[in-house]
Amino acid sequence: MNDFENVKESFNRQAIMKTIGAKMESVEHGKVTITLPFQDSLTQQHGYIHAGVVTSIVDSACGYAALTMAAADHDVLTVEFKVNFLKPAAAKRLIAIGQVLQSGKTLTVCEGTVYNETEDKVIAKMIATIMAVKTNR
Amino acid sequence: MNDFENVKESFNRQAIMKTIGAKMESVEHGKVTITLPFQDSLTQQHGYIHAGVVTSIVDSACGYAALTMAAADHDVLTVEFKVNFLKPAAAKRLIAIGQVLQSGKTLTVCEGTVYNETEDKVIAKMIATIMAVKTNR
Amino acid sequence: MNDFENVKESFNRQAIMKTIGAKMESVEHGKVTITLPFQDSLTQQHGYIHAGVVTSIVDSACGYAALTMAAADHDVLTVEFKVNFLKPAAAKRLIAIGQVLQSGKTLTVCEGTVYNETEDKVIAKMIATIMAVKTNR
Amino acid sequence: MNDFENVKESFNRQAIMKTIGAKMESVEHGKVTITLPFQDSLTQQHGYIHAGVVTSIVDSACGYAALTMAAADHDVLTVEFKVNFLKPAAAKRLIAIGQVLQSGKTLTVCEGTVYNETEDKVIAKMIATIMAVKTNR
Repeated sequence: MNDFENVKESFNRQAIMKTIGAKMESVEHGKVTITLPFQDSLTQQHGYIHAGVVTSIVDSACGYAALTMAAADHDVLTVEFKVNFLKPAAAKRLIAIGQVLQSGKTLTVCEGTVYNETEDKVIAKMIATIMAVKTNR
Repeated sequence: MNDFENVKESFNRQAIMKTIGAKMESVEHGKVTITLPFQDSLTQQHGYIHAGVVTSIVDSACGYAALTMAAADHDVLTVEFKVNFLKPAAAKRLIAIGQVLQSGKTLTVCEGTVYNETEDKVIAKMIATIMAVKTNR
Repeated sequence: MNDFENVKESFNRQAIMKTIGAKMESVEHGKVTITLPFQDSLTQQHGYIHAGVVTSIVDSACGYAALTMAAADHDVLTVEFKVNFLKPAAAKRLIAIGQVLQSGKTLTVCEGTVYNETEDKVIAKMIATIMAVKTNR
Repeated sequence: MNDFENVKESFNRQAIMKTIGAKMESVEHGKVTITLPFQDSLTQQHGYIHAGVVTSIVDSACGYAALTMAAADHDVLTVEFKVNFLKPAAAKRLIAIGQVLQSGKTLTVCEGTVYNETEDKVIAKMIATIMAVKTNR
């Protein structure tokens, strides 16, 4: 299995996460939390965080949740996801949680949830299919 | 109907599009094209453009395609989308095209496609459901 | 709000549910359970229940869960859904549970889960977007 | 590659297709058409064909389109799909076309479209992810 340090290192190589200001808050077996403080530079036309940015952090959370359960010499790729946007991303901070629903040898299915800063509102729900691929290292 | 100037103005208010360097290339009735040059700041751990960034531009393309067919005093919100990632986003420039499949009074369904710079590879496919909402103006 | 008798009556008008042998097991506010005994007539090429049949019962469960929270003079339509198939539908009986995640004036988002007969295996997961429409009655 | 006779034989083993009255109309490399005449036994509460039945035929069309491009000793499984319902399935006959968008060694992505009998209305749009698995034969 990929140890949690590998997961964090991989996250740190995602330049986009630095660009938008996202932080990997916690890594557990099958579960990863990423947070993102509100910034004006991330908004859509109404001043809320853009759906694509919401998607970015919950995709990374789901991918890394899958990686915690993948074999050590494997990396993960997002095959596809679906996201429902339940509330406008009008939050001081977004909390994205990715959780493995089912982990197979090739495919892992994850569920992602994006909350506002107090975790009392669900802003978005994701289901993602993630594929493990052997790394060339 | 929203005239194309409104569509472009609204796009210009999406701060995230400036942040990532995306440009609205063209606006037609029911069809919008957005392009994005590769930048290191947008990458995931393998150096490709992050799935969330790919999603951001094609979501905006679909949303604005829907807006070209919405009533003049309406704005649009993304209800949900699904994206399949067909190839790694290893391109010098991404071309995202959003097209209306069906436009209803309340809901519009759009199809989005993201190509590489020569448009010979499909990198991602989106189906999105978009809702028209009356603006308060 | 639609009372539970309306929900059951509407389910009884779904001829396909009779055709496949599905039963509405329970109706609560925002939650509906439908069950389906295995039958050879419902199978795909490997002898498992066909993905489309699995989808049929969980779509009805989600739709009726939404209906329990819709205004009394409204009916519901499925706008779209996504289903992930986690295990083959190799069960003596399928149990499909539809639950409202968020109920709005126009759109309701439901989560559906299909279990095997002992509810220890998740066979499929659905997220569905459902629209309330005023009936002509 | 699976020859077209294998594809038809496999379709004929899908008991549900017989149950609902669906017919495999044509098989090409990467493209399969399945048709379904309207029957009262397939309807939902408004007398239209149930979304799950629409899904059943387009899922089979997509799966068999993928099978035409899979290695000879492989079978296919639906990993997940998303369907948007664009119009009520108020048709004398449904025509479901499944087409391969991208075929990989493990995963194939298909696009499905369901038309009414004159093919002038799109009733539903599917994107499906399908996995090839080695058969035990």
